[in-house]
Order: sequence, then C-alpha cells, then structure tokens
Amino acid sequence: MNNFDELWPGGPKYMQRPGVFKLGSDSVLLAAFTKLGRVKTVCDLGSGGGVLPILLEAYKPGIEITGIEINPAAVELSRENILINGMEEHISIINGDMREHRTLLEAGKYDLVISNPPYFPAGSGYESDTLPTARGEAECSLEDVCRAAAYAVRWGGCFAIVHRPERLSELCCTLSACGLEPKRLRMTQYKHGAAPNLVLMEARRGGKPGLLIEPPLIMTDEAGGESEEIRRIYRRGEN
Amino acid sequence: MNNFDELWPGGPKYMQRPGVFKLGSDSVLLAAFTKLGRVKTVCDLGSGGGVLPILLEAYKPGIEITGIEINPAAVELSRENILINGMEEHISIINGDMREHRTLLEAGKYDLVISNPPYFPAGSGYESDTLPTARGEAECSLEDVCRAAAYAVRWGGCFAIVHRPERLSELCCTLSACGLEPKRLRMTQYKHGAAPNLVLMEARRGGKPGLLIEPPLIMTDEAGGESEEIRRIYRRGEN
Repeated sequence: MNNFDELWPGGPKYMQRPGVFKLGSDSVLLAAFTKLGRVKTVCDLGSGGGVLPILLEAYKPGIEITGIEINPAAVELSRENILINGMEEHISIINGDMREHRTLLEAGKYDLVISNPPYFPAGSGYESDTLPTARGEAECSLEDVCRAAAYAVRWGGCFAIVHRPERLSELCCTLSACGLEPKRLRMTQYKHGAAPNLVLMEARRGGKPGLLIEPPLIMTDEAGGESEEIRRIYRRGEN
Repeated sequence: MNNFDELWPGGPKYMQRPGVFKLGSDSVLLAAFTKLGRVKTVCDLGSGGGVLPILLEAYKPGIEITGIEINPAAVELSRENILINGMEEHISIINGDMREHRTLLEAGKYDLVISNPPYFPAGSGYESDTLPTARGEAECSLEDVCRAAAYAVRWGGCFAIVHRPERLSELCCTLSACGLEPKRLRMTQYKHGAAPNLVLMEARRGGKPGLLIEPPLIMTDEAGGESEEIRRIYRRGEN
C-alpha cells in the first residue's frame, strides 16, 4: 500500500491511493506557475493528497503551508506524504470544509492562496461518482473557493488557481466580485496550433484592473515528446 | 485626396484620411473572426471610416448594416467609402453617440453587433490627442459599448468585439453584467511563443455560461513573413 513515487528524480516522494483524487498535471503546472518570491505563508484550498503543499515546500523550503481538505481519506494520505518528505514542521492540513473558512482559517493571514478546485458545475454530469467533492462543485462552487481565498489572503497577496478554459469568463467575474483582481493568465496547449486545455490564473486582493496574458505553455514539441519547458517543470522541479 | 486602396486585390476599396482613425489590422481580424452564417442585420458601434461594414458586406453581400459613429469627419469618409463600393443600399451610417442608443437604434433589431472600440481608459495617457473618441474612453467606456450592444442585439444574437489582452478580464465581467455571455474567444499572437496582442470575443445575448477558447491566431510564420492564415484573411478576404 505504501508505494511512494518521486515527483521527479531525487524530488519529493508522493503516494497515491484509491479514494483520493489522483495526481494530475494540473497541480504540477499550477505549482510551477506560482511565484514564490517573497511568499512566507501559503494556504491550499482543497489540498487532496497534499501535492501542492509538497511541491511548493520543495520549491522553497521553509515556507509555512496550511492545507484545507474535506475528504478525511485525502487528509490521512496527505499527512503520510508530508511525513515521508520530512515536511511536517512546515505543512499542516486541516480536515474541514472551506466554506467554513471563517472558523477554520485566520483572515488575511496568507501571502499566497492556491487551489486546484473541482472543475465541473454541480449537475453537469461530469462529477466523479466516487469523489464528488474533488471533481464536481456539489459541495464547493467556484464562488465558494474564491470567497475562501479572498478571506484567507492578505491585502496585496495573490490567489493562484487552475481551471478549465470554458470557465475562464466565470472565473474572471467571480474573482473580481470577490475583490481578487485577475492579474496574470497563462494557458496551456498540448501543442502549437491547439486550443488551450487549462488556464492558470493569478489574482491579487485589492489589485487594480489590468491583466497580463503570458505566452501559452506548449506541452509537446514538434516530435510529440515533452516540450523543453515541460521537461524543466517535471524533471528539475525548478520554479 | 480621393486615394482609394483595395482591401485585398480585387476586394472592396477603402480610403483613409487624416482626422479619421486609421485602418488597423484589428478591424480586419475582427471581421474575419465574426460568423455570418444566418446573419441578416448588423450594427457596428463606432464605425469610423466604415471598414467593418464594408468588409462584412463584401463577405456576405446583401446583409443590412447600420453603423453608428460620433465623429462627423469619419461619417463623411465612411459614406464615400460605401459609395465607391456601391454598397449604399445595404449600409447606412448614423452620425451620433452610441450612448444615445435608445433614441438612435431599435432595441433587439440586430442579429449581430460588432465593435472595434477605444482601447484605453480615460486618463490612462494613451488616448490620441487628435482622435480622443477613437482611442480613448473619455466619451465611450467599455461599459457604454457593451450596454449599447446589449440593447441593439436580438435575444440569442451575438456581439463580437476586439480588445487588448490586458482588458480581457474587465471585458468578460462587463459583457456578463450586460447580459452578453462570453461564448467564443480567440487571441492573436505575432508569432509562436509570443504573448497575445489582441483578443477577439464573441458574446451571446442570453447565452449560458461556457466559453470556447479557440487556438491562437499566429500572425507570422517561422521565416517572419505572413502566416498562411493571415495571408488568407488579407488576400482573399474569405470568412
């Protein structure tokens, strides 16, 4: 059962388990997109098996990270993942519902809030039967996530989120309505000439309007292998 | 003074003149982005020298197009441009302020509304001194344009607009707030690997949430010349 993989050769270890939302490239791409420059405290909304806290801690050892996760099995797994990497002094996971953020988190405490949230609206038919909270919005809408982020992040701090392209407009509007101004957007494409498959967004609490859209992140090269940028993100884990 | 160019070899003629916002690729790209399938009536908000009505009429002869333009010199020029192309039966230009749309336009009349609006917020320092209405939002904000579009377009009809990438988030929120749901987005890039330089957006009045983001339109090829798609748009004028 305790089958740990390395996230990259020599990188942090990570174990997956049935009943916990599985590791996807989304979290790795979100971690790589996030700017950690002056960040000392991070909150991960819906931390699942703990991959985002572990990646960010590996990128910048010593930052204090709090995860919040509703699924007890995921919380248990994330604690094992944190322990095997010796990160337990810097990462703590709260088993709770982010909609209860006012009782679970401290207002305006975090320099950075991140989330890889459920992608599909409740009732859309795309929710997972076994993991309703991780894929579908039945228990946590995009607005719930943005509200929790706006509550937890300090004034001037950032919220970084990954989502699906078809939700981009709602994402902009919901962020803005919560006082989180969209400031930096990057889209990923499988290859040149393809439509985007993910959007990575950074919003700033109290930021002024004005969005920087970065060049797309192209995932494969002409030959169909990993692009150089993806190789860099996956193999070296540098940010 | 009457120096007409062809918009593409054998295509419609178009004259420019000092004192009227000059023809840019933005309008040509917006015209090419627009879907004219079942469209019979079009309204162009801020029609300038008439390039968008003339392009759309050339793409689909017979559609009825109304332009509205605040600058009398631009209106005069656009009427000359329409006449030289023999399009006067199908294109009419109203000299007026789109903020007065309730008195100038018929509510819900148009299958399609289009606009190449001013790009820069009032007071941003990027307005043109000589053409304040065409480049700066002093007399026409993004919200003014979206309100006029929401008024003029029929239920289920579309509004197509071109803007700068840094305004994308505001654009989404303003459209949504006006009842125009962002449905289709395309960005242009000078070359592969570059950040977007324009956003082309189609919103539908009364549409459901859900945005299709198309592959980026790349303007130059590897050798630095026009890309095949740009050549198609500029040379053949096909839509």
